[in-house]
Amino acid sequence: MNKQHVAIAGAGLVGSLLSIYLAKRGFQISVFERRPDMRKNLLDRGRSINLALSNRGIRALEEVELAEELKKVAIPMHGRTMHNRQGQLTFQPYGKEGQYINSVSRSNLNMVLMNKAESLGVEFFFEHRIVSADFDKTTLSIQPSAANLQQLAFDAIVGADGAFSAVRGAMQITDRFDYAQNYIAHGYKELHIPADTAGNFKLEKNSLHIWPRESFMLIALPNPDGSFTCTLFFPFEGNPSFDSLSTKTEVENFLKETFSDAFALMESPIESFITNSASSLVTVKCFPWAKNKTLLIGDAAHGIVPFYGQGMNAGFEDCRILNELITTKNNWTEVFTEFQHKRKPDADAIADLALDNFIEMRDLVGDPKFLLRKKIEAKLNQLFPEKWIPLYTMVTFRDDIRYSHALAVGQKQKQIMDEVMRLPNIETSWEQLNFENIVSNL
Amino acid sequence: MNKQHVAIAGAGLVGSLLSIYLAKRGFQISVFERRPDMRKNLLDRGRSINLALSNRGIRALEEVELAEELKKVAIPMHGRTMHNRQGQLTFQPYGKEGQYINSVSRSNLNMVLMNKAESLGVEFFFEHRIVSADFDKTTLSIQPSAANLQQLAFDAIVGADGAFSAVRGAMQITDRFDYAQNYIAHGYKELHIPADTAGNFKLEKNSLHIWPRESFMLIALPNPDGSFTCTLFFPFEGNPSFDSLSTKTEVENFLKETFSDAFALMESPIESFITNSASSLVTVKCFPWAKNKTLLIGDAAHGIVPFYGQGMNAGFEDCRILNELITTKNNWTEVFTEFQHKRKPDADAIADLALDNFIEMRDLVGDPKFLLRKKIEAKLNQLFPEKWIPLYTMVTFRDDIRYSHALAVGQKQKQIMDEVMRLPNIETSWEQLNFENIVSNL
Repeated sequence: MNKQHVAIAGAGLVGSLLSIYLAKRGFQISVFERRPDMRKNLLDRGRSINLALSNRGIRALEEVELAEELKKVAIPMHGRTMHNRQGQLTFQPYGKEGQYINSVSRSNLNMVLMNKAESLGVEFFFEHRIVSADFDKTTLSIQPSAANLQQLAFDAIVGADGAFSAVRGAMQITDRFDYAQNYIAHGYKELHIPADTAGNFKLEKNSLHIWPRESFMLIALPNPDGSFTCTLFFPFEGNPSFDSLSTKTEVENFLKETFSDAFALMESPIESFITNSASSLVTVKCFPWAKNKTLLIGDAAHGIVPFYGQGMNAGFEDCRILNELITTKNNWTEVFTEFQHKRKPDADAIADLALDNFIEMRDLVGDPKFLLRKKIEAKLNQLFPEKWIPLYTMVTFRDDIRYSHALAVGQKQKQIMDEVMRLPNIETSWEQLNFENIVSNL
Repeated sequence: MNKQHVAIAGAGLVGSLLSIYLAKRGFQISVFERRPDMRKNLLDRGRSINLALSNRGIRALEEVELAEELKKVAIPMHGRTMHNRQGQLTFQPYGKEGQYINSVSRSNLNMVLMNKAESLGVEFFFEHRIVSADFDKTTLSIQPSAANLQQLAFDAIVGADGAFSAVRGAMQITDRFDYAQNYIAHGYKELHIPADTAGNFKLEKNSLHIWPRESFMLIALPNPDGSFTCTLFFPFEGNPSFDSLSTKTEVENFLKETFSDAFALMESPIESFITNSASSLVTVKCFPWAKNKTLLIGDAAHGIVPFYGQGMNAGFEDCRILNELITTKNNWTEVFTEFQHKRKPDADAIADLALDNFIEMRDLVGDPKFLLRKKIEAKLNQLFPEKWIPLYTMVTFRDDIRYSHALAVGQKQKQIMDEVMRLPNIETSWEQLNFENIVSNL
């Protein structure tokens, strides 16, 4: 019998990782990518954005034996460092000792995955655009940049082609396909803090930095070269907004007043702000994810906003779970059907959690009441480590807990903590709380 | 100065009506329609489906002086006639004496509108497909069936091209366009009750007939030729469902047992059921509706399910409101921007009301508690006609009340009535209620 031939749309992080999983199982894998090979284009590799790799993502990388290699170039971030308007710093750990997230370069991670995939026999076809798909025949119509349209048949197709997925676009015009794309009012622009002249980090290296400003925020993640990539999440319209700041003077005054300590460290922030156009942020939900022997995964199935640092981690977890189901099910239709029913509630949950976390990051982390709440929750977790697990920990460090379960428990915890925080003089009396009683309400 | 040239996408009910409004204002109007001219194709005119025309739609038709002509061929429906499994009938009036909805033929209404539009100088281009749109240049790329792609520029463009709008499709690939399409679990198939041999109606003519069966329903609306068009709203999957009934015997047994009185009157119901494939039902929401000088209206902006009989009426109300704004605003961008902000909450409201009303029609109308609730509400309305207006009346007969207001008041009424219905012995004691006190809670 011939090897089964699986097409993967998209050579991004999720498509590349999935190609490794499937190649290891002995399938013939062809990956079709609209863009050129990023490994051949130095420009694209330069000042690339970084992502927060955490336990769900690491678990999948361990399964394909890449975790050790990638950890070497990852920068641990043990918590958040908040910068207030006066430049004063506050630190909030993400979890317990030894629990941290990792700043990794998207392009470096992507290249490592592609190289590994090729070493396992995966074939990548760059500058190949998917024009349409037939879900009855399991075919793709593919347009190579310098050749005629081709129609190719496969044993199975996986659309891992991101939030603007062409495979999903083809599904969307089939009957009874539920689909929603919702943009938030904020967009983002990237700014840069270079290393100092000695090549050292100008801010604490092992931290995710946040400048929370209530209705918007700046964040910074460390890069291996000693620099930080800063991202300003800011409204498109209103005052202040990307719209309201147009002249160099307006931009300079705004950045200087609002993020004084960061501004002083940045490289040509005004030019970057003026030159770069703002990118938008969208949540994509759809269902079904599977039509016969074609499946959507990663951002193609569930595009989320970046505020929980879980987009890539959720996509990698998709690959792990899909791989597990291949072991236990008989054919692609069964695998894909089971996958979508199992995974959809978790994808919906992390989409909602990511939207909520924007409010936490940009506003609440600067609020003393919120910090006290976190302190009480940390105490609950210390006293009852298996009963009261903070939501952030469940989402980020506990790859054995489903996102949907984390969301449900988190909502219950919030109700309980809302009541606790309403107690009179909670600021001074919180250490005398009956913690056992609180946990028993969960 | 030349006449301003406005393109309308879609020669359906809303596009045709809008072309009349705009032609009357002296604009040059070109209407582009993907399908052939239904006036030249007798097949399409045959056993066409009917729609419920009510006050919002009639008000717009009055403004373009077509209401009288159309009322002549409309069949008034004064209320719902419910048919239970035993064939027993119950009648529920829709409103007060003189308040009724009208069964009209979609194709007849559409042809009347197109003829009127042409008499005013509107040009229709049939079999012209819109391929793309440029919202900066206000151009459409149009593919005539037997000619090359054309790019045409206009002073303004209105997409009235329905729930699967090509103009909206072009908007959807612009940045920051929120979009959602959601299918319900039910689809529909049409069945037919012909006139008797003397050409008379076999069921009460001036009624909308419902066979409520909790999780699904059959309805029937009268046609001028003495026939009824029946529509079975039924789940796609599960038991019973379109999926579960496949053989002729299964279909026959199901229809006979479930809708015995209707089945006996139908013309080849089993063949119709087997031959016709089930159509799906979708709600479409999006925003913005306007990009510069291009606007979406009707189903293109807000596709809704048919259970409140308001899809066409809402689209006609769109035309009326848009026409009003042209009087008061200075340019297309202002008109379109104001239109979308004014109209979006109403479109969202009627979309939600239409989904709710499916449950009322298929399930609640057969429930004695619900009928008692309606009786109490009718009494409240009789005693306080301007204070307590039933939701159905606000939506259907009161074109001076916005859908969004109707929804909000309806929710308040529901809360109040939920409490009333919880009173002990309400079935026997309702006439002794303190009605004035109930109304004062509103």
